[in-house]
Amino acid sequence: MKYELFYWPSIQGRGEFVRLALEDAGASYDDVARGKGGTDAMMKLMKGETRPPFAPPFLKSGKLVIAQVANILFYLGPRLKLAPKDEGARLWLNALQLTVTDFVKEVHDTHHPVGTGLYYEDQKPEAKRYAGSFLDERAPKYLGYFEGVIEKSGGPYLLGRKISYTDLSLFQLVEGMRYAFPKGMKKIERKIPKVVAVRDRVAERPKIKAYLASERRIAFNEDGIFRNYPELDT
Amino acid sequence: MKYELFYWPSIQGRGEFVRLALEDAGASYDDVARGKGGTDAMMKLMKGETRPPFAPPFLKSGKLVIAQVANILFYLGPRLKLAPKDEGARLWLNALQLTVTDFVKEVHDTHHPVGTGLYYEDQKPEAKRYAGSFLDERAPKYLGYFEGVIEKSGGPYLLGRKISYTDLSLFQLVEGMRYAFPKGMKKIERKIPKVVAVRDRVAERPKIKAYLASERRIAFNEDGIFRNYPELDT
Repeated sequence: MKYELFYWPSIQGRGEFVRLALEDAGASYDDVARGKGGTDAMMKLMKGETRPPFAPPFLKSGKLVIAQVANILFYLGPRLKLAPKDEGARLWLNALQLTVTDFVKEVHDTHHPVGTGLYYEDQKPEAKRYAGSFLDERAPKYLGYFEGVIEKSGGPYLLGRKISYTDLSLFQLVEGMRYAFPKGMKKIERKIPKVVAVRDRVAERPKIKAYLASERRIAFNEDGIFRNYPELDT
Repeated sequence: MKYELFYWPSIQGRGEFVRLALEDAGASYDDVARGKGGTDAMMKLMKGETRPPFAPPFLKSGKLVIAQVANILFYLGPRLKLAPKDEGARLWLNALQLTVTDFVKEVHDTHHPVGTGLYYEDQKPEAKRYAGSFLDERAPKYLGYFEGVIEKSGGPYLLGRKISYTDLSLFQLVEGMRYAFPKGMKKIERKIPKVVAVRDRVAERPKIKAYLASERRIAFNEDGIFRNYPELDT
C-alpha cells in the first residue's frame, strides 16, 4: 500500500510529524505536493472531496482521505507498528499527541500572536511579548509534562519500553525548539533530560538518520512553525 | 456504567463539548469537580495518575482516564450512539471535531492573544487587534467550512441524515459566538444558514432542551472561552 501525503512543499511544518512516522517505518509514500504541479493537485483535492480537509496536511490511504495530524497518526500508528493495539493505550497515546498539537500551535503563535493573515513584521512587539511568556512558562510546562510522563512510564519512551509515533514528534519538538530558540531551549533542557534522551534515541534510529541526511528532509526555515528570530529568543 | 467528568466547576469551557454529548445521550455521569471538594479531587487525580492528563477536561470510564476533548468524544461517540461505527467515518468525524478544537483555541485567544498567564486587562490592545482579524477572516473561514461540509453531506447534519457529537459542538460554537460577539456573529450568520439550522435542531432536542433549562448548564461568563467584551465585537 502506497500512502499519499499532502502538505506544503517548502516547509517541515505540521506535515513533518507525519513524515517522521512514515520514514521511521520505512513506509512507501508519495509526498505529493513536492512533485511538479503538486500544490495545485493538493488544492484541487481539498476542494473536490466530499469529505474535504480544512487544511493540509492530509493523507490519502486507498479511498480514505484523513486530515489533522493527530488523526492521521492515530490511523497510521498500529499500521506502522508505532502504536499499541489496545484501545486504552491508543487513547492515551492520542491524548499525548493532541498535547503535541496544542504545543505546536503555541509555538506557531510566538511569531503570529495577533493574526495568521498578517506578516510577522506587522506583529513584532506582540510577538516579543508572547515569546517571553512562552519561553518562561508554556514551553517548560509542556516539555516538563512530557518529562513527567516518561518518568512515570519507566522510560525510556513515553509509553515505556516501546517507541511510539509521539516519541518521533517529541524529537521534532526538541529539534524545532533548538532551532527557533537556541538560548531559551538550552535553559529549558536542563530540566528535561528524559525528553532529550528520547530525542537522542530517535536521532540514532537508522531510518530516521538516513531520512535526516536525505533531501526529503526540508531544512528548518522562516516560513515554518519553528522560526529563528533571534529577537524572540530571550 | 457511570462516567465521571472532570472539569473546572464554574465555566462551560472545553468541558461543555463533552457535557453536551453526555446530556444528549442521557448518559449517567458525575460532574465531579462541581461537587464538594471536587476541584481538589480533580487536581489530585491529575497528579496521581500513571497516565496523567495535561489539563482538564478528562473523563474517567471504568479504569480508563481519557484526556483531550476530541479524544473523549472519539471514545464516547459510538457508545453514546453519536458517531458511526465504521472506521473511515469515525476518522472523518474526528477530523471535524479537531477542527472545532482549533477554532475554540482561536476563540480563546481573542481575549488572550499574548499570554494565558496574563489578565485580559493586560493585553487589551493586542486582543482588539486579534479579534478584528478573527471576526473578519478566521471565524467566517471556520464556520464557512462547516457550512460547506453540511452542503456536501446533503444535510441536515455534518455527516448527513444522522446527528453526531460534532453537531452538538457546532451548536455550542454558535451559542458561544452569539454570546461573545453578537454584532460580528450576526453578520457571519447570513452566510452559514445550514450551520444555524444545525444549532436550531440541536436546541430542540428534548434532552438538550431539558439540560439547557437545568442548573447543570452553567451560564456563559467572562471566565470561560466565550467572553462578552463589547470592545472586541466590532
